[in-house]
Amino acid sequence: MSYKNFPMVPRVIFGRGSFNQLNDILAPKRLSIHAPFIYLIDDVFKNKSWLTSRIKLSYDDKIIYISSKEEPKTSQVDALVEDIILETKERPSGIIGIGGGTLLDLAKAVAIMLTNKGESKDYQGWDLVKNKAIYHVGIPTISGTGSEVSRTTVLTGPEKKLGINSDFTPFDQVILDSELTKDVPKQQWFYTGMDCYIHCIESLNGTYLNTFSETYGNMALQLCKEIFLEDKLSKTEAQEKLMMASWHGGMSIVYSQVGVAHAMSYGLSYLLGTKHGIGNCIVFNHLEAYYPEGVSLFKKMMHKHDIELPKGLCANLNDEQFDTMINIALSLEPLWENALGTHWQDIMTPEKLKALYRKM
Amino acid sequence: MSYKNFPMVPRVIFGRGSFNQLNDILAPKRLSIHAPFIYLIDDVFKNKSWLTSRIKLSYDDKIIYISSKEEPKTSQVDALVEDIILETKERPSGIIGIGGGTLLDLAKAVAIMLTNKGESKDYQGWDLVKNKAIYHVGIPTISGTGSEVSRTTVLTGPEKKLGINSDFTPFDQVILDSELTKDVPKQQWFYTGMDCYIHCIESLNGTYLNTFSETYGNMALQLCKEIFLEDKLSKTEAQEKLMMASWHGGMSIVYSQVGVAHAMSYGLSYLLGTKHGIGNCIVFNHLEAYYPEGVSLFKKMMHKHDIELPKGLCANLNDEQFDTMINIALSLEPLWENALGTHWQDIMTPEKLKALYRKM
Repeated sequence: MSYKNFPMVPRVIFGRGSFNQLNDILAPKRLSIHAPFIYLIDDVFKNKSWLTSRIKLSYDDKIIYISSKEEPKTSQVDALVEDIILETKERPSGIIGIGGGTLLDLAKAVAIMLTNKGESKDYQGWDLVKNKAIYHVGIPTISGTGSEVSRTTVLTGPEKKLGINSDFTPFDQVILDSELTKDVPKQQWFYTGMDCYIHCIESLNGTYLNTFSETYGNMALQLCKEIFLEDKLSKTEAQEKLMMASWHGGMSIVYSQVGVAHAMSYGLSYLLGTKHGIGNCIVFNHLEAYYPEGVSLFKKMMHKHDIELPKGLCANLNDEQFDTMINIALSLEPLWENALGTHWQDIMTPEKLKALYRKM
Repeated sequence: MSYKNFPMVPRVIFGRGSFNQLNDILAPKRLSIHAPFIYLIDDVFKNKSWLTSRIKLSYDDKIIYISSKEEPKTSQVDALVEDIILETKERPSGIIGIGGGTLLDLAKAVAIMLTNKGESKDYQGWDLVKNKAIYHVGIPTISGTGSEVSRTTVLTGPEKKLGINSDFTPFDQVILDSELTKDVPKQQWFYTGMDCYIHCIESLNGTYLNTFSETYGNMALQLCKEIFLEDKLSKTEAQEKLMMASWHGGMSIVYSQVGVAHAMSYGLSYLLGTKHGIGNCIVFNHLEAYYPEGVSLFKKMMHKHDIELPKGLCANLNDEQFDTMINIALSLEPLWENALGTHWQDIMTPEKLKALYRKM
């Protein structure tokens, strides 16, 4: 039996307003005046000077605004990396991702691909990255994905939706400033928060679970219940707690894995481009058979927050499209093994999966 | 307002039997055949081949067995560092501490003092360390101190008992193998476990507390209750959970502080050499006025596990001795400020402290 030697984010700062410390944190990491810091920022913050005016650009530093309307793609990573190489005199001093899971995952992938040859699709999988990434910083502006602590960056490639899982993937520095999440629209808040909730349910009910992951999962689950089912928290408290829930939920997957909802949601996303948060919710809503208690609580949360999920996503799909989704989902073997055990293939057949997708 | 940019342990491995992976983890860290790994090991493991036979010594690698009967001292650190410098051809590749808080703190301090000039007493305080420590690994064999995650190493010096608190203090690697805690004597198990419990109570009731520390503290407290008050856990489960409680309890102090019990216990320890775990318990037992719920639960835990604390420690002390203890305790300003607020000096006077010590 061999256990994973998990890489933790080596520096973390937590606090309302801690984003103000970004420039001081970066300054000693500048390699030269020709090695810029590149900021990848969700384009919802374009012209939002309350945030952007606090970023001090020096020398060749640059902000690249990126839409998070679509899930991050390997082609997008490769194009960003090519642009950065062409436009900078030296390898950058660092990549700073500011946004939700999409922006954080892009920042991680770009940092990796600046020091590793070839195309990012070649690194989708487990432990395929050869060289240390360049210094990269994650600053979440929405809570739930756990991307800020995870050793993966999930990308949609030409053949699969799969993470670049490696010891070089985690951020070198994370800034947890809940104030940055203050303007998240309600639906988005709910869907991304549920990403965390579903991480907990899938981790805690998985066969891979150990005590390390269990304690983190329990803490995150407890926080999700407080945030999404009780009415005791102030807005600020709820934002701070959701930020920590996301963190602990991400840590819970360290020695565990996600499960049925994530596998199926990857299928939806690959075929239809469904964003990860809402995709998880659409799938999870139909998984009573696999996570009875978790789904029951999820329905209560949806009811409490007046969330109406889109319906009929798969109504007009043809057989070929179903097969594509099913193949993507079933290729994620560790997720199924965690959810259903070593004999998962006897339990989850393509037919069963198709019947489930048809409901969505 | 400026927040601490906290250094986390960058690598952690958790699992029953994970100690077997030590040699594989160390191998790539060897700097040269003349740069040995130095193992500082609690001498209770001398001739315990179930543990020591799994350590592979190569080239000039060396085991130094150290008694943990006394709290670690600055003079002890300085002597160890001098010996290591004299006896090794090159600066060691790494220091590996295997034991409880005493051994872990010694390993951290030795790793720091191998790259920093002068005596270790000069570094007792906050952020006085100039140079990065050499690679150091922590392997707890008893759970509760939180030393495995903390940025301090608490030493008794000629003038004070105080930690070397710095960003260079935390371990580069921690191995959490609960099997190593299987032979801890019951009393020691209880006292060291209570170190974790008291960390939680002092952190959660402190004025410094923020949401980051609160979530870790709640998680650790919940685990302590399961372990010390309920009867649902198997021996292995209880060992694994206490190991995680210690970890989370240590993380809870990141943005918080300890409080009255730790401050007073440092006084006891400085004057009488009382070990930290039992010292904390002796003090905490009399702190109803400051932590009413925490102390009440502590008494239930003592009762459940038939723990009888020593009495009359301070019965025969003279005024000068009381003054020494009181001065050591009151010098720990951040602890008092966390416990009692900015006007703590109006609340905790030397007279009150003396009256409290007299009860012990």
